[in-house]
Amino acid sequence: MAERAVCVVGAGLIGGSLLRAAEKAGRTVWGASASEATAAQACADGFDVTINTDAALRRAAEADALVVLAVPLPAVPDVLRRVDAIAPACRLTDAVSVKVAVADAVDRYAPRARYVGAHPMAGTAESGWAAGDAELFTGAAWVVAADDGLDLDVWRDVADLAWACGARVVPAATDEHDLAVARVSHLPHLLAAILAAVGAGEVDPALGGGDLPLALAASSFADGTRVAGTRPELVLAMCEGNRDALLAAVDDALGRLGVMRGALASTGGLAATVKAGYAGRMRWSATREPLEHHVSLTGPAVLAELRDIGRRGEVVTGWA
Amino acid sequence: MAERAVCVVGAGLIGGSLLRAAEKAGRTVWGASASEATAAQACADGFDVTINTDAALRRAAEADALVVLAVPLPAVPDVLRRVDAIAPACRLTDAVSVKVAVADAVDRYAPRARYVGAHPMAGTAESGWAAGDAELFTGAAWVVAADDGLDLDVWRDVADLAWACGARVVPAATDEHDLAVARVSHLPHLLAAILAAVGAGEVDPALGGGDLPLALAASSFADGTRVAGTRPELVLAMCEGNRDALLAAVDDALGRLGVMRGALASTGGLAATVKAGYAGRMRWSATREPLEHHVSLTGPAVLAELRDIGRRGEVVTGWA
Repeated sequence: MAERAVCVVGAGLIGGSLLRAAEKAGRTVWGASASEATAAQACADGFDVTINTDAALRRAAEADALVVLAVPLPAVPDVLRRVDAIAPACRLTDAVSVKVAVADAVDRYAPRARYVGAHPMAGTAESGWAAGDAELFTGAAWVVAADDGLDLDVWRDVADLAWACGARVVPAATDEHDLAVARVSHLPHLLAAILAAVGAGEVDPALGGGDLPLALAASSFADGTRVAGTRPELVLAMCEGNRDALLAAVDDALGRLGVMRGALASTGGLAATVKAGYAGRMRWSATREPLEHHVSLTGPAVLAELRDIGRRGEVVTGWA
Repeated sequence: MAERAVCVVGAGLIGGSLLRAAEKAGRTVWGASASEATAAQACADGFDVTINTDAALRRAAEADALVVLAVPLPAVPDVLRRVDAIAPACRLTDAVSVKVAVADAVDRYAPRARYVGAHPMAGTAESGWAAGDAELFTGAAWVVAADDGLDLDVWRDVADLAWACGARVVPAATDEHDLAVARVSHLPHLLAAILAAVGAGEVDPALGGGDLPLALAASSFADGTRVAGTRPELVLAMCEGNRDALLAAVDDALGRLGVMRGALASTGGLAATVKAGYAGRMRWSATREPLEHHVSLTGPAVLAELRDIGRRGEVVTGWA
């Protein structure tokens, strides 16, 4: 059997990288973009990207292709309506950074689709077709939803695509994904924004203002604010679409920051904060080479087993 | 006249880089380290570094060298006592990351020294002699204190050394320096620590816990927590030594985070936070090529003029 064809809706940083990576892996791949300029750029680079989403979906239905939604969350409902009209039972996944909201939208707008949500954990502060890169996903974690009841045949398609793009599959329940990315992806964007605003704050010279602070900003500020340079619409779509999970992460950060503020004001000591941060960073470093599993997509408990692999921070890299 | 000789006390990341950079610039340079292992490493690399601080200072007194304190803040008083005993009126500067506390210590322990405080704004998450690099200061901002009453002859020595190391001089009042670095250097370390702790937090799986969050952490988390990997003692010495200024910066961040939390909980909107952060990051990017001045160290108002250059985020790169 030839490897499954791929239809990518959206050709920004993620969709554009996916088109490039899938083609490089030898897949038949085509796409759609709502932007004429983007479609023209992609075509000029030799990719089959149309502004006619319906036509791309029709071809997907005919070829039994895997359809990948790679549009920002606010654009998802409109695309799903077209899916339901043109390729209602297609194999469907996505690359959107929140999963509960997309799953809810699929239930509502394209309930017949064979949907398995996904989220490749890769990105840069750049955006748009031109920023895309066939290697963007190399070595990255690619979350694949592992809730009970999902279509295992499509699950296999999604994992195969992730591997074709050089990524490692991390299975996760939809809601656990959203709680996790609130902590390690959305909160970093918000703290970066706060740090950038404090650094650039319009403050009285007596409070360290003027342009002196930014002139003294070195690598700690540069790294800590890098993602604050992301296009605001993209950050808003991502963070606002994960409101409940994000509130829990923000409250955790606020609580820790408040405790630290109290310690600094009372005893002047910051050891608890700084040591907890050091331990966290070291623990993160230790997770960079996760245990790899080959799994068999059979048995009644396979999805529960997959979720447990992800909860342990481990990955799936092939079929048993 | 030969260029002024340099005596560096401390041979960690900063002192070790300074020894390398000054030697590369053709200066006569020697140093001292309280650590036998460090001194041995530096000597093995061909540098004149002794564990006998008194001997290094005696040579500095004889050669009328510029003495640079490159030790962590808690070690400063002990070194200053030796300065007062052996080279009491020496030309003295430092590379410590806070300036009010060092100036106070000089007033107390080495009041006869001809002290002009300084702070090269460069570093990495690494530390120790082996992490040193002759190019560490290339293109960096090198703050030189510009309070009224300072010794202009030593000011010239310090600026000459900064330029020899490839840096740009940013003049600043001692207290304004501390307020500025609280915002752009110390706060980044604390927010990185908080983010790392939240990402690694021991949380209930129902709250997104287990090892899943760290497994999903990608570049936004990696960059946002990079400086949380700095040796905790160094971060504590730096941040705890700047307590009052840091409290103001932490309160600014807490206030902004609280406002954001309120907006997320009530309307779900994060636009104000994200746009302010984007604007701050863009403003920082725009400061990377500051206006350069050549100055003359003459006239009654020269130090006030220098402070104004730094307040505008501009730099001094030579003598008029």
